[in-house]
Formats: sequence, structure tokens, C-alpha cells
Amino acid sequence: MKDVSAVNSELVALAGKVKGASRRVRLASAQQKNDALGYMAEGLEHTIDEILTANADDVARARGEGMPSGQVDRLALTESRVKEMAAQVLEVAALADPVGQVTRGYRLPNGLAVSRERVPLGVVGIIYENRPNVTSDAAALCLKSGNAAFLRGSSAAFSSNRAIASVLSEALVKAGLPRDAVALVPDASRESAVAFMRLRGYVDCLIPRGGRSLIAAIEEHATVPYIIDGEGNCHIFVDASANLDAAEKIVRNAKVQRPSVCNAVETVLVHRDVAGEFLARMDTFLAEVEIRGDETTCAAIPRAIAATDEDWATEYLDLKLAVRVVDDLEQAVDHISRYGTGHSEAILTNDYANASRFTREVDAAAVLVNASTRFVDGNQLGLGAEIGISTQKLHARGPMGLEALTTERYVIEGSGQVRG
Amino acid sequence: MKDVSAVNSELVALAGKVKGASRRVRLASAQQKNDALGYMAEGLEHTIDEILTANADDVARARGEGMPSGQVDRLALTESRVKEMAAQVLEVAALADPVGQVTRGYRLPNGLAVSRERVPLGVVGIIYENRPNVTSDAAALCLKSGNAAFLRGSSAAFSSNRAIASVLSEALVKAGLPRDAVALVPDASRESAVAFMRLRGYVDCLIPRGGRSLIAAIEEHATVPYIIDGEGNCHIFVDASANLDAAEKIVRNAKVQRPSVCNAVETVLVHRDVAGEFLARMDTFLAEVEIRGDETTCAAIPRAIAATDEDWATEYLDLKLAVRVVDDLEQAVDHISRYGTGHSEAILTNDYANASRFTREVDAAAVLVNASTRFVDGNQLGLGAEIGISTQKLHARGPMGLEALTTERYVIEGSGQVRG
Repeated sequence: MKDVSAVNSELVALAGKVKGASRRVRLASAQQKNDALGYMAEGLEHTIDEILTANADDVARARGEGMPSGQVDRLALTESRVKEMAAQVLEVAALADPVGQVTRGYRLPNGLAVSRERVPLGVVGIIYENRPNVTSDAAALCLKSGNAAFLRGSSAAFSSNRAIASVLSEALVKAGLPRDAVALVPDASRESAVAFMRLRGYVDCLIPRGGRSLIAAIEEHATVPYIIDGEGNCHIFVDASANLDAAEKIVRNAKVQRPSVCNAVETVLVHRDVAGEFLARMDTFLAEVEIRGDETTCAAIPRAIAATDEDWATEYLDLKLAVRVVDDLEQAVDHISRYGTGHSEAILTNDYANASRFTREVDAAAVLVNASTRFVDGNQLGLGAEIGISTQKLHARGPMGLEALTTERYVIEGSGQVRG
Repeated sequence: MKDVSAVNSELVALAGKVKGASRRVRLASAQQKNDALGYMAEGLEHTIDEILTANADDVARARGEGMPSGQVDRLALTESRVKEMAAQVLEVAALADPVGQVTRGYRLPNGLAVSRERVPLGVVGIIYENRPNVTSDAAALCLKSGNAAFLRGSSAAFSSNRAIASVLSEALVKAGLPRDAVALVPDASRESAVAFMRLRGYVDCLIPRGGRSLIAAIEEHATVPYIIDGEGNCHIFVDASANLDAAEKIVRNAKVQRPSVCNAVETVLVHRDVAGEFLARMDTFLAEVEIRGDETTCAAIPRAIAATDEDWATEYLDLKLAVRVVDDLEQAVDHISRYGTGHSEAILTNDYANASRFTREVDAAAVLVNASTRFVDGNQLGLGAEIGISTQKLHARGPMGLEALTTERYVIEGSGQVRG
């Protein structure tokens, strides 16, 4: 309790309500949760006008305060975006309920029947930035996995988030579930974010969705358990035996298809034996991409800019790519272990031993052979919608679906056993 | 990196070495790790004299500084205790290696083969108190699961821990593994403990083994991921339909067999319908136990002391027991959700619906039916040796064996797939 003594008593009061609500949704049947999700989708469709009106206020205020247009884009909703939010809620409803899944069961020599069972975490806190769709996406994933969603969006999106959260709460009530199983922090100040991170005893898991400064604030201030959805400085190593036609498609896909996401490639490492041909091809197939290269790369691609140490460490999230020629697999692995962020790392090769060695030695949430890093995503990997991609090792690593929002407990059934 | 800029540069230098060593043990074969564990056990047996001499220094200093005798007991080693430490290392060697275990594997419609594989966490940090056996127990579990063990014991046990850690490091070298895969922090000051908690980027998981003040310091200061091995305020609810002979054995076992451990029972809740008989029995079968009871209990057991609110919330770890008479299962569940610490909670009943409802509604790492809470322990549940019992929900909940010292990663194998 000490952790929250200094914080806003209103926030603590709300946290208490959310915790109370979590005790009820924890026990809700899959049917009841799906009913609520159905009402949520319906509610979003029916209140598009109200949501867009609230959003227009946010957008006008943001523009007035000089928010950069890229950020305004992420904040702005349209009729079709709200419809997509509703569709996304229905997709979550269609996923299997992880709660109650028995992951292991066995009988001990003394006759005790032991099982491990998935149960909800309790209260999942989400701190996020401008996208109002996170409000419904995150709430749906939390509810489906039996958790209460405690949401702390940005102040810029406050009116939008409030309109959306109110629809979601109404849907809960309609399904016989507590309104506070989805709750939005009413104060979006920086102080409230720090207070939120310190709601130990109320928030069972905090998932930040934001940039470096948010992550740094959480590492510094959080007293609640959290999962970091961090940077993806992803690499592709084009080995000497790679099929260069396939490599061309994969590197292009990984860089260009959607450069702003964490599973896009940021550095390509090219084996010296194929550097002559592959660098020449890159110059062409990555014509729209700015290349930051080592000496060999700059010699082969005249438009390339000399890479600095910072380039190797940078997640560009843009049409920029660092390129380095390496002598062998070992040098590639060393480069990755020095600069990688443990997200997604790929080798393109036809050499069996090299594929084995790369997958074994590279320490990342996902290692890939002969495939685009863009596949490292909950939907692509068959988990359904994802709440984020963990770059930490505890609890969840890589794309997090519904299972990451549960924990496992032991159920032990006996007939009077005592310990000898 | 910012987190460590302010701390002791010697500690950071050591942390760098441990991290480097972790990259090598991560890839060690089970055979190589078992060889090292064998040499560790052998080394402990061969250096009993040196270890006991070092320990005698610690004990003499502790006594000189007025350490209470219970604590000195935990600090003191004997020949047989060192032999037990060696035997424990061999028990860990005999466990199955969790590294490389594939927990799931499937093929996606696009032909990608996806598998999830257990891999070591990397560097596991342990902060612990006076027991020097934790040095070898924790190191063995970390090594077996492919992790480096970064140990920060108490200053009182420093000479003992140094002697033990040196034996363990020699064994690593003998098995061709890096010495620093087991490392002891050379400075056991309070400042070094805080610096240790903030080694983000070096320590992948911190497991504290200590009391409330250590846990509070970690919640406040840690920037590394951690797992709390917290208090066990465990309950047994004796339902109206319980077999009272079995209940007598179970309650006695849970309270008296080893009162100082976290899975011992601290409060017994008795259904009003059987309170008359069961309280009278308790007076006898718990003759050596101090009873703190509610009004009904005090009326039935004249020697009982009136319980205060604090009693319901206290983990006595002693021959003391709180007893309350409840009207029904609901009141029992409410009491547990108010005062429980989410460790181990049991119902004794012959009513099928009540057993189901209790296991469903009580939120704890372990829920038991008709069995002693003392079974909630890694060894008893068949996990082998345990590194602790988690009372948090993220990553691991309940007894933590080798698996809790691993994480899972995705391995994705393709033949040129790109995302559409």
C-alpha cells in the first residue's frame, strides 16, 4: 500500500473499482464475455457520430497546439476506422478463450492430482499514445482473457477515448458484467502516468505502448509488474549460399512493405562472397531507400552514405537501411549480438550448418531462416490479435496474444494427504 | 545504459564478465553442464575444511556483532550441511535439461514452420540472506538451465560464500565453461544491493530471497525484471461436510510440521455447522500452538487470545494460528480474498459443488482440495529443486523449477516467404 500513499486519491479509488470489477470478469463464462464483445462492436457502430464528434474536438485542439501532421494522422478517426475498430472487437470475440485451459496435468505417487490451469492476470494496465483505436483493441483482448482493462491514453486523445470507453462500459453492463471492467484514467497528466505505474496491489500487469521516453519512465518509476514492448533493430544476414532472387524479395519486403513497424529490417549484413552481386542488386531494388553503408557498401553503391556506429544501433522506422559486408557467419552473429534489440533476426542461406548455427547462437524473441522479418507478428503467426511484441524475456517474449494476458496456477486435489 | 551510470564501476565490470559468460553457458550441452555440476559436488566435498574455516570466521564475526541465535543457525555450516549441499547439486544434475525443449510447433498456411523453444534467460541475479547453501543451490539451478548465476549474498556470510563460489568457478573451468558463469558480488554493502537491482541490460531476471524489507527495496529501486518470492498467508477452510478426522491430520500437518515456511497454514476458517466439534478437537490436537481466535473460537477454546485485524493479515511463521468461524463458503472466500497473499489456499470438504466453487473463485498460485498446504513446493509437486515460490502472476506463479529460469522464443523456418 505504501506505493500509492503519495498518489492521487481519485486514481486509487478508481483502481479499487477496477480491481473489484476484475474479480467478476475473471469468473465470467466465454459466452458472457463474447456477448459483451458483440455489444461493444454494435455500440461502436451505433455511436460513430458521437465518437467522430469527440475525435474532431481532439484533432482541432491538437492542430491548434501545433501537433506534427504524422501524429495528427494517428489521432484522427474516420467512419471507416471506427468500423474497423468494431470489426477488430468481433475478431477477438472469435478467438478461443484461454481461461480454464489446462496446460499440464499429472498424478503424484501419493495420489494427489495436480493440474496447471490458465487464469486471468486480473487488472491489466495499458499506457498508450495517440491512437484511439487502442482503447477498443486493448479492452477487447483484456476482456476476452478475463481481465479488467485499466486504460491510460494520451491527453491529446482524451475526448475520443472517453467516448469509446463509455460505449465499451455500456456494453459490459448490457452483458451483465461490471462497467468498471473497462476504465479510462480521467486525468492524462504526466503525474497521473507516474502514479499509474505505481499502483502496486491494483495493477497486475502494465503494458506500455509507446516510445523510448515512456519505456524509460516505466523502468525508472514503475512498482507494478510490466512487460516492455521495445524497439526492433532487426537484421537480415544474406549468407554466401543464399538464393539471391529470394533474398531480393525478402529484403525488399522486410524494408519497404511497412517501414514504420518494429519488425521491419533496419540493417542488412551481406556475406563478402556475394557482396559484389547483391549490393549491385540492392542499389536497384531498394531505389527508394536511403542506404547507410560500410566502406565496401559505399564503394559498390555510390549513393550510399557512410554509416556511423549510431546507424548500426538505430531503429529507423523509415525508408533507410544500414548495410554492412561481413566476412562470415561469426561476424554477422557478433554484429547482431552487439547491436540487436532481441526482436527478430533472420538468415538467408542454403547452408544447413549455417542455418542451424545462426538459429542456435542468435538470442532474440524470433529467429528466422529464409523468411521476411515482417512475419513476426501475432496475427501472422496464428495467435490472433496481439497486445504487443515483448522484447523482454520474462513472462512473454515476442508477439503476445491472449495467452500472454493469463497466468497459470496449480490446482491440487487430494483425499486427505499430508506431507511426511 | 543510463541506469548503471551512477553505480559502482567495479560492479558493472563484473556484470559485463558475467554477461559474456552467460553467452557461453547458454550454448553448453546438457552433458557439459552435468559435468560441471559433478565437479561442483566433488569440489564441495573436497574443500569441506576450507569452507568450514571460512564459515567459522563468519560465525565468529556474527556472534561478536550480536546476531540473534536463530540467524546464526542459518549462517552456520557443518560437515553434514556441506555434504547436503553437494548432494543437492547432484540432484539438480539429474533433472531433465529444459533448454531446447520445443513447447509448440506448427505449420502456417503459407508453409512457414513455426516452433517455440525454451532458451535460457541469460544472467539470473539472486539477492539472498544468510544461508550459504543458497550459493550452491542457486548456482546449480542457474547452470542446469543454461544461465549465468550472479550472486549477491549477505555481508555476514561473505567469507563462506566466497569459499563456496570459488569451488563452483573452478568446477566450471574444469568442465570447459567460463569461470564467471557463477560470480559473487565482492561488495555486500546496502549500496551495492541497490546498484545490483539497477543493472538493466546485464541482469535478465532478479530473484530476491529475503524478507519484506528486501522486497520493498526491489519494488522501489529495481530497474531489472524480477520475480517476487513473497509471503504466504495461507488458509484452510474446513467446510461443513469435511471429514473431521482427515481435517485434523491436515490442519496439524499444515501448521506444525514446519511452521517457519511459507506454505504453512496461518489461518483456519471453520464452518459454523462443525465449529463446535472441530474447535474442541483443535484445542487438543494443536495443544502446542497459540490460538488467536474470533469470538466464537475464544468461547470454545478458553486459552485462545482474541484475534485483531492484524492477526488475519499476519504470516506468523511460528506455532501460532488464527482461527475464525464463518457462516458459509462465501464468507470464507471473502476472508481469503481480503487477507490472502495469493500463495496457497485449501478447502477441506466432501461437497462437490463447494470444492468446485472454492477452486474457481479463490485467486492464488495454488488451490488445494482435501490436502495439506505443505505440498505447495517444487520438490513435492515433481518439479525437482526449486529456486523459489513466486507470489506474483507474471512469468511464474507458485513453485519455480528449472522451467521458470527459461524463456521461450520463436524459430521460424521458410523457403523464401514474404508478407503479402
